[in-house]
Formats: sequence, C-alpha cells, structure tokens
Amino acid sequence: MSASEPKKQRTNPQYELLYHPGIPGRGEHIRLAFEAAGVSYKDTANENLPNDKGLNGYREVLAVCDAKSTGDKDGNPPVFAPPALRIPGAKKDGGTLLIHQTPNILLYLGPELGLVPEDEAERLYVNQLTLTALDVSNEAHDTHHPVAVMQYYEDQKDEALKKATDFRETRIPKFFSYFERVLKGNESAGQGRYLVSDKLTYADLVWWQVVDGLKFAFPKEMEARSKEFPLIYTKFYPGIKEEKGIKQYLASDRRPKYGMGIFRHYPELDRQ
Amino acid sequence: MSASEPKKQRTNPQYELLYHPGIPGRGEHIRLAFEAAGVSYKDTANENLPNDKGLNGYREVLAVCDAKSTGDKDGNPPVFAPPALRIPGAKKDGGTLLIHQTPNILLYLGPELGLVPEDEAERLYVNQLTLTALDVSNEAHDTHHPVAVMQYYEDQKDEALKKATDFRETRIPKFFSYFERVLKGNESAGQGRYLVSDKLTYADLVWWQVVDGLKFAFPKEMEARSKEFPLIYTKFYPGIKEEKGIKQYLASDRRPKYGMGIFRHYPELDRQ
Repeated sequence: MSASEPKKQRTNPQYELLYHPGIPGRGEHIRLAFEAAGVSYKDTANENLPNDKGLNGYREVLAVCDAKSTGDKDGNPPVFAPPALRIPGAKKDGGTLLIHQTPNILLYLGPELGLVPEDEAERLYVNQLTLTALDVSNEAHDTHHPVAVMQYYEDQKDEALKKATDFRETRIPKFFSYFERVLKGNESAGQGRYLVSDKLTYADLVWWQVVDGLKFAFPKEMEARSKEFPLIYTKFYPGIKEEKGIKQYLASDRRPKYGMGIFRHYPELDRQ
Repeated sequence: MSASEPKKQRTNPQYELLYHPGIPGRGEHIRLAFEAAGVSYKDTANENLPNDKGLNGYREVLAVCDAKSTGDKDGNPPVFAPPALRIPGAKKDGGTLLIHQTPNILLYLGPELGLVPEDEAERLYVNQLTLTALDVSNEAHDTHHPVAVMQYYEDQKDEALKKATDFRETRIPKFFSYFERVLKGNESAGQGRYLVSDKLTYADLVWWQVVDGLKFAFPKEMEARSKEFPLIYTKFYPGIKEEKGIKQYLASDRRPKYGMGIFRHYPELDRQ
C-alpha cells in the first residue's frame, strides 16, 4: 500500500487531519485515534507525498494557519498551529468545522470514534490524563529547545544539556510514577493495560505515544528505568502495541519515523 | 470582608478549589470563573489563612496530590498537581468527583456556570482558545524557569534572560496577533470584548488573566506594544475588568497578589 492511498474506503464524515508532513509530532495522537478506531481519514500533507513531496497538501495546512487570518467563511476562528482537524458538514448549520489544539481535537473525536467511556466522570479523567501526557511531550520538546523554539538546537546546546538532565532525573520519574499509579488504581478494570475503565481510550493512545517517543529520544534513560514502573513497561506499553488497528498501523508505512520533531535522539542528552 | 468568609451563601453543589495558597497561579482561572458567574466556592487553602496561615487547608491540597496515591475511595484517579476541583455528589453514583488540569476543570465548569455558548462548535472554540492561552501562561512561567522547574531562578538567570528575550520578541507578538485576530473575526458578535459569541465565556477569563499577568511580569514590554493590538488593549482587556462579578472580585481581598508564581516581575527580564 502506498502512502498516497487511504487505508480504507472513505465514509462520511470525511475527517481531514492538517499537520506537518513526514514527522509524527502532535499529529500522531490524532492518527493513532483514527487507526485504533479503524476509521478512515485524510492526512493531507502526507497523502500527496509521493507526487509532490507534500507541497500541495502542506500548502493547505499552512493556509489554515495563515498569520493574517481572522477565521474562515464557516465562522471558525483562525488556527494557531497544526494539528488542525477539518470536518465538512459537522457544524449545526451544515458548515465545515475546523478546530485545533491536540487535546481539543481528541475531545471532539473521542465520542465519535468510540474512544471514551459513556460515563461523564470517566470522560473527564480521559481528558485530564491526555492533558498531563501532553505536558510530558511539551517538556520533552523543550529538552532540545529550552531557550528559543524557532532557533536551532545547535545554538542552545548548553542549556539543552541542563534541561535534559533535569527532565531525565526529575520530570520523567515524577510523570511515570503518576501514570504507573493511575494504572495501579484502575488495575481491577484495566488490567494494567488501560488508564480509564476496561477499554481503550484516547488517553491510552496519547500516553503510549509519549512513552514510545521517549524510548526513541532517551533510550538509555528509559532502559535504565524499566524496572521502576512495571505496569507501564510490561503491561501497558506492549499491550497498546497489540491493539487492533494499532498493530497494523505500526507495521505500515503510514506510521511516520521519528526525526526532527518533538522527540529527537541526541545521544549527549541521554543518560551517559 | 475577611478572606476567611466565603463571598456568598453556600449553595449546592459545594464546589471546592484545591490550590496553593497566596498566589494567583493556575488556580486563578478557576476563581475567575466562579466569580464571574457569581457562584460560591470554597478556596480551601486560602479560606483558612487568617487562622492557620493556610496550613490546614493546604494540607488537604497536598493530600489529594500525594505522590503515593493511586486514587481515592470514590474511584477518582490520583491528582498530578493543583489546581484540583472537588464536588461532593457530582458523580453518577452520588460519589465525590475530583478532577485536575486547569482546562479540564474549566471544561466541566463551563456549562455548570453558564460560561459557554449552547452551540457545540463554539464550545470547542472556547476550549481551544483556553488551551492556547494556557500555553502562553506556561511559556511565561518558563521565562524564569527555563531549565529546571524545581530549582531557583537565581540558579538559571543566564538561561532565563535568553528565554525571556525570545518570549518577549517572538512569542508575545505571535500569540497576541493570534488573539487579536480571533477578536477581529468575532467582532460583529463580540464587539472586541468577547472571543467567542456575544457573551462572556471562560476563554475570555483565561486570556484576560494571561494578559493581566504579563502586564505585571513585563510592564515595559506590554506598554511598548499597546498600539499593536488595539482590540486586546482597548476593548477586551478593560471590558473584562468591568464584567459583573469580576469588577467586584478584583477590588476584593479575595484576589491574590502576584508574587512568586507563574507571573513574576524581574526587571532584568523585561524590555530594557
């Protein structure tokens, strides 16, 4: 299957992910939700890659983030940054809905894709765990860009070393302890495989992607801590990998490789 | 009125904010929502302040964030960090709901306090704008703690100067341009005073608090940019200040002073 072909026959609604081409990044959390649900989606910047290296698709992404936009003709506010999700016909008046912010997109998709429980309290837990996992992702990003997001890593290497050391020594254990305890508290329902209830939710997918990204970025650190968080390492992480939809996806060429995105492997920033 | 007295007669449900005492911080976003709605709430760590300097109240806050907790008897997952919101009787089974993450708490409170529109798309806009405003708040925090959140500012001053310079020169204009354009795009409904629809939403309160915090932290920078973003500076910011509930609150001793929280005024980090 080439990357230009969608995974499945398109159905309505036509979900369209607008994100940077060629990297997992924050867009990956949206992809994983669709893939786990087995619901087709258009990944605009990536689907045109073989023909035009994503340029036409990426132009559409950049267009919705135009720094002069005050919103679109359907009454959607401007997009601050990708990822964004576009769904024709999803507004009350039949217009196209265009939203951004990863946790906001997932909040919308959760019920649509069957990736949240029915219970309102449990949906709030899913949202709060997603937000917390994304905080880890932001901090991981800041390890290589602690001073200026638009400048090169090479221009902030000294600061990056300090930030990464703190992240590895202080923040990883704090966040991993938290998610280990969430799994433990939900063990009778979730068997260590799910954070909330006895079924897969998008919070699981987000936290899994963060753990996976950290394994790429800090392989030595993550290996050294493998005994500290047994549920995460032996139940949760391998369990999500085997979920229907996810297993297929990870083996496909739709799964982007890590590179110069949020999770980067600079050996000097890893445990020595 | 002393800080130990709640603002109004308590009604059900009994909302309880669990946050650090004595600073605005992220808890302030929750306070502003209650104050704008005129709904009473318990601010546990602050309400006991005159008697015990908040120690008994703060112990309750620390208890829900216990680093060994796997959740509570009501089936709520552990809290990663304050602010948290506790509402007895709010769970389906009559149990106490305990949630954390500022945007998650606001997502829950929005409909309860009448601080979101009825329209589902507009509620998503409110959430995405809240998330974006809180990103600004996080970046403002990182200007004085770019390297290690648990270490002193004094131990990361060189890095802080670089981070603050980038924040002032690159990030403030980018974010302010965004919110100015959101106000512009919604001007026919919101008159420059509201980000979404023609009524106050919690997104307005969050963005207002961020602007107010930045005025405290970077007064010269904010003054220098006052002509660049006319809707924010002349319509939105002064307008929210005059909102029913907010005006009263800002004049009361319930409004905590800025200090050693997210927004700090270090003159060396401001525009010179």
